[in-house]
Amino acid sequence: MSSAPPPIIVLVRPQLGQNIGKAARAMLNFGLTEMRIVAPRDGWPNPDAGPAASGADLVLERAQLYDTVAEALADCSQVFASTVRKRDIVTPVVGPEEMAQAIHGQPGRSAILFGPERSGLATEDVVLASHIVTVPINPEFGSLNLAQAVILLAYEWSRQATLVQPTRFEVEPRAPQAELDGLIEHLDGYLAQVNYFNPPERIHATRNTIRTIFTKPGWSSRELKAVRGIIRAIAQPRIRSNSSNS
Amino acid sequence: MSSAPPPIIVLVRPQLGQNIGKAARAMLNFGLTEMRIVAPRDGWPNPDAGPAASGADLVLERAQLYDTVAEALADCSQVFASTVRKRDIVTPVVGPEEMAQAIHGQPGRSAILFGPERSGLATEDVVLASHIVTVPINPEFGSLNLAQAVILLAYEWSRQATLVQPTRFEVEPRAPQAELDGLIEHLDGYLAQVNYFNPPERIHATRNTIRTIFTKPGWSSRELKAVRGIIRAIAQPRIRSNSSNS
Repeated sequence: MSSAPPPIIVLVRPQLGQNIGKAARAMLNFGLTEMRIVAPRDGWPNPDAGPAASGADLVLERAQLYDTVAEALADCSQVFASTVRKRDIVTPVVGPEEMAQAIHGQPGRSAILFGPERSGLATEDVVLASHIVTVPINPEFGSLNLAQAVILLAYEWSRQATLVQPTRFEVEPRAPQAELDGLIEHLDGYLAQVNYFNPPERIHATRNTIRTIFTKPGWSSRELKAVRGIIRAIAQPRIRSNSSNS
Repeated sequence: MSSAPPPIIVLVRPQLGQNIGKAARAMLNFGLTEMRIVAPRDGWPNPDAGPAASGADLVLERAQLYDTVAEALADCSQVFASTVRKRDIVTPVVGPEEMAQAIHGQPGRSAILFGPERSGLATEDVVLASHIVTVPINPEFGSLNLAQAVILLAYEWSRQATLVQPTRFEVEPRAPQAELDGLIEHLDGYLAQVNYFNPPERIHATRNTIRTIFTKPGWSSRELKAVRGIIRAIAQPRIRSNSSNS
């Protein structure tokens, strides 16, 4: 058994309470109990969730509600976005097995993001993730619903939890997402000052690219701090000299 | 890919047409197309099945109807009964992985039996099977429904069907080392200018730390170029303003 904490299941803008209940049931079947719900369409609690949970009320009672995906991920070191690959995003794509291995090898908290029933995760949600996780389904008939996607990934996590594995915990844990957000905001502030986001219509895509690039390393808290120090060292003197010029 | 035929899914006395449809959908998601239905409570075809199949109509259209389990299994070489272990039966119990291995290793037809929604398989059904297959779920909350049991076993079969294939790392290749060296030298030059390597006896350790941090991401050529652009953007204006001051 790995001693890494189980993943948190994050439902992003779920539509039907029934599907939230089914997801809770799917989780509890494989021993997952932490659900976070971001901006559910019909509010929370939702009276349709309980009956669909078939007894997994524990999961629903403990579910935490968030306004934004970023807040729901603030304490997570490793985030998997459950989606098919997106054309415009270079986030690495892994299968369920690689995801489960990575979760079992990560001493920090891991989260798995699931999008709304109809549309799935938006690009803005996916860029917050370190990896995309895609269940390899029949290419001619891909149609997993929310609870099915949850149960398959929960199963894979559970399957690997029971495999005996040499733990290689010498790796420093990835920093919580909030620290990465700090670095990116910091960088973004400097870049805005030097007019990096130009032309303005590209700003959104450019920000996504930057986020993807700096999410990829999986830096620890110590490393993130060092990178912030480096960025500050390079940028600060300019700012000092600029302000003395003005 | 194994050349063994895919398993046949046999639904024994299913109750709701909706669940038959959901099972068809679960099958087709992982490339299984042969369903056999034994003595369905509400007859066959069932108008509730189609809508629940979400497009897996092919499976429903081809489904074969049987009066008895024995007839449905007549051409099968290997039969797995999906159920929890039965006290009174000595049939060997395997997990989903061992089941999938056995199916992939079996040139004859294999079948997986699933019981009615409420009661599950009867002893008389289970004794027809060569093995019991049990999904290892949370012992304190075991509640897989029919479609969930089908999808997990279909997934496991599919997972092992594709195992021999090299994993598809569509991720961009890591940049050649020389490009990483370029970034690090670039950064090093800026840092030296801002007196970052201070005290001087720490310069070697600090350089090693920086190299480790920037090696970790495994950035592609494209990403490295973007990072160099970001560093340049932050640092250049200062250098320009410095040189105009000197």
